[in-house]
Amino acid sequence: MQDHGSLPSVLDVHVNVTGRSSVLRKVKSRKARWSVRPSEMSNKTFNPIRAIVDNMKVKPNPNKTMIALSIGDPTVFGNLPTDPEVTQAMKDALDSGKFNGYVPSIGCLSSREEVASYYHCPEAPLEAKPEKNWEIDLKQLESLIDEKTVCLIVNNPSNPCGSVFSRRHLQKILAVAARQCVPILADEIYGDMVFSDSKFEPLATLSSNVPILSCGGLAKRWLVPGWRMGWILIHDRRDIFGNEIRDGLVKLSQRILGPCTLVQGALKSILCRTPQEFYHNTLSFLKSNADLCFGALAAIPGLRPIRPSGAMYLMVGIEMEHFPEFENDVEFTEQLVAEQSVHCLPATCFEYPNFFRVVITVPEVMMLEACSRIQEFCEQHYHCAEGSQEECDK
Amino acid sequence: MQDHGSLPSVLDVHVNVTGRSSVLRKVKSRKARWSVRPSEMSNKTFNPIRAIVDNMKVKPNPNKTMIALSIGDPTVFGNLPTDPEVTQAMKDALDSGKFNGYVPSIGCLSSREEVASYYHCPEAPLEAKPEKNWEIDLKQLESLIDEKTVCLIVNNPSNPCGSVFSRRHLQKILAVAARQCVPILADEIYGDMVFSDSKFEPLATLSSNVPILSCGGLAKRWLVPGWRMGWILIHDRRDIFGNEIRDGLVKLSQRILGPCTLVQGALKSILCRTPQEFYHNTLSFLKSNADLCFGALAAIPGLRPIRPSGAMYLMVGIEMEHFPEFENDVEFTEQLVAEQSVHCLPATCFEYPNFFRVVITVPEVMMLEACSRIQEFCEQHYHCAEGSQEECDK
Repeated sequence: MQDHGSLPSVLDVHVNVTGRSSVLRKVKSRKARWSVRPSEMSNKTFNPIRAIVDNMKVKPNPNKTMIALSIGDPTVFGNLPTDPEVTQAMKDALDSGKFNGYVPSIGCLSSREEVASYYHCPEAPLEAKPEKNWEIDLKQLESLIDEKTVCLIVNNPSNPCGSVFSRRHLQKILAVAARQCVPILADEIYGDMVFSDSKFEPLATLSSNVPILSCGGLAKRWLVPGWRMGWILIHDRRDIFGNEIRDGLVKLSQRILGPCTLVQGALKSILCRTPQEFYHNTLSFLKSNADLCFGALAAIPGLRPIRPSGAMYLMVGIEMEHFPEFENDVEFTEQLVAEQSVHCLPATCFEYPNFFRVVITVPEVMMLEACSRIQEFCEQHYHCAEGSQEECDK
Repeated sequence: MQDHGSLPSVLDVHVNVTGRSSVLRKVKSRKARWSVRPSEMSNKTFNPIRAIVDNMKVKPNPNKTMIALSIGDPTVFGNLPTDPEVTQAMKDALDSGKFNGYVPSIGCLSSREEVASYYHCPEAPLEAKPEKNWEIDLKQLESLIDEKTVCLIVNNPSNPCGSVFSRRHLQKILAVAARQCVPILADEIYGDMVFSDSKFEPLATLSSNVPILSCGGLAKRWLVPGWRMGWILIHDRRDIFGNEIRDGLVKLSQRILGPCTLVQGALKSILCRTPQEFYHNTLSFLKSNADLCFGALAAIPGLRPIRPSGAMYLMVGIEMEHFPEFENDVEFTEQLVAEQSVHCLPATCFEYPNFFRVVITVPEVMMLEACSRIQEFCEQHYHCAEGSQEECDK
C-alpha cells in the first residue's frame, strides 16, 4: 500500500478534537477504533405494540396447544383464503409480462385510476369510550387541539375496538375539524368490513370542506395483508393541502418506492371482479365468530367483552379488582399464555389499559376452545372484590 | 353543535402566541385559518436524478419516434423477459396460499435463509476515473475521510459506469476502510452481471475484518425491478456492528414493512431453479449491445464512450469544447431529445458532468437506430475547437 503519512489519521482527530496539529502527526499513528452508530432515523423508529409484546413473557403451557388471538392476520389458519378471482388476477398480471418493471413511486397511473374510480362517489368528488360505542369525547378532543396539532386521526371501523361510528358522530368530528382548521387522517383500512346491523360511512362523503387523507388497501377486506398494497385517497375539494402536501406525499413515496408492480397490475381485476359473495361470506364468518366469542366471554365473571360492529377484533375489559394477582392487562395476558396457551394482545399496546384484544378471524372450533380456556383461567384466578360478596354469590 | 365558548380557539393562540389570556377569550372568536405543512421528513427527501430530469425539457421531435436510453429498466420493451421458472415460482407461491399474510418486516425466515445460503461462500461467512477503468483515487478517498465519515459506499459493478473493479483494487479499498475504521456499504445489485472478460468479486469475500453491508436483490439479474425484492447481507465477522446496528436495520425495516410476501414465497425457487442459460443469455445480449453501442459512438467525433464491463449502462464523454452551443450535458441531452427523440440521462445526475449515460437493455435494432441518430445530432452540432484544425480535418 502507498504511504499515507501526510494524511492525519482519524485517531488524531479523536484524540485531539480541538485541532490537527503538526506535532500530533509526527506521533506514530495508533490504530483508529471502530465505532459504528445507528442513525437517528432508526433510533426514532418506535412501535408501541412491539415494545410491549417483545418484552412479554409468552411461554405457553406445554400441555396445551397454542392459540394466538393476538395478531390481526386473517391468513394464519387458512380458513379465510382470498377469492380465486384475486389469485387469478395476479396470475394474469404475471403472464402479461407487463408488470415487472419500474412504475412511479406513487403507483402506476392505471392502478391509481382504478382505486379512484372504485372509491368515487357523488358526495365525495378518534379515540374511544366503550360506554358510548367507543365514541370520541368531542369536548375533550377539541380541548386538546392547539397550535401543535397537525391532524386528527380517525380510525373507523376501528382496530382494536371493532366499533363503527354513526354518520351523526362522524359529522360531529368533522365539525370540530372544520372549526379548528385541522385536517383529518382517516384510517379506513377496515372500510366496508362492517356487520349487517351497521353501516360504514366514508368520512369524505360527509364533508366538502375538511381536507381528508383516507388510507385504505387490499390487506383486510381482500384478506392479503402480506401483499403490501395500500393507497391514500386525497379529498381536498377546497384545495387546502395545495401542492405542498401533495409534493410531500410524493416525496415520502420515493422513500418506500411503492408496492410490488404485480399487485398493481392485478388491481383492476381484484377491485372489479371479486364477487359480492366473497365479501358477504367473510363478514358472515366474522359476525358469527364475534357472536360466539362475545356470548362466551360475557358469561365469564370478571370479564366485560364489548360487542364489535365490524373489523376483525373484539375488546374485552378486565375487572382488575377481581384479579388481584395481576398488576395490569400485560401480566394478565402473560399468565393466560403460561397457563392456557392462549395469546391475546394486552390493550396497553393501544394505550387502553385493563382490556385485551381478541382476533376473531380464527377457525370457529379454535375460537370456542380459546373462550373455554379463558373461562377456566378466569375461574381459577377470580377473587371477590372486598365488599362485594353479593356478586360472588351469584 | 355544542357550545365550545370556554375553549380557546386556535386563532387566539395564533394571534397571541405569548399566552391565552382571559381577555382574548372574550373577544368574538374569529375563524381559525387552514395551514397544513408537509413534514420535515418529506421536505428532506431529495432525489438528485428526479431534480434534474423533472426540470429537463424533453419534448421529442414529433417526426421521430422516441427512443428512451435513460431509464435503467430492462422490462420496458419486452425483449428481456424474466425466466419462466421465475413466473412459475410466483404462481406456485400464489397457489400455495401460504404467502398472503404478514411476515416480519425484516422478511420471513425461510426467505432470508435462502438468500443467506445462496450467497454463502467459504471466504465470506466509489467514485470514478474513466482513465483507469473508473477506479477510485485511493489517496483522495482517504484524505476525505474524517470523524464525520459514516461509511464508504462502493457500487460494483457500477451504475452508471458499467465498470467492474478488479480484486486488487477492491483489496486496496478494503485496506483504506480497515485503516480508517470505516465500514462499507457495498451496493452489489449488479453482482454477477459482468461480461465474460471480467469477474465479479463480492467485496465481503476479500476481507474478514472490515464490516460490510452488501445490498442485493432480484431487480437486475432476474429482470424484475418492479417486484421490489431486495436484501442486505450483513458481513461482520468481528462483530463490529454489534446489536446496535442490527437493531437499527430492523427498525428501519419496520418503516417500509418488507417486500410483498408472494415474492418472498417464490424466492427459493427463483434463486435455485432459474437456469444458468437464462443468466448467460442476458449477459450475451448486454455484451453484444454494449459492443454495438460502443463501436458506433466511438466513431462519432466529439464523443468518447467508455467500454463497460458489466451492469446495463455505457457512459459517454462529451467533448464540450466541440459543442459550444451547449452549456453542459443537461443542455446537450435536452437538445438530443428535441431533435432526435433520443433520451439519455445527463451524468450531472451522478455528479459526473460532461457525460451522458446510455441504457443498453433496449432491443438491438433500437440501439442501432439510437446510435445513428446520435451520430446525426453530433455531426450537425460539432464545431472545431479553436486551434485544433487538425482534428476537424480527419
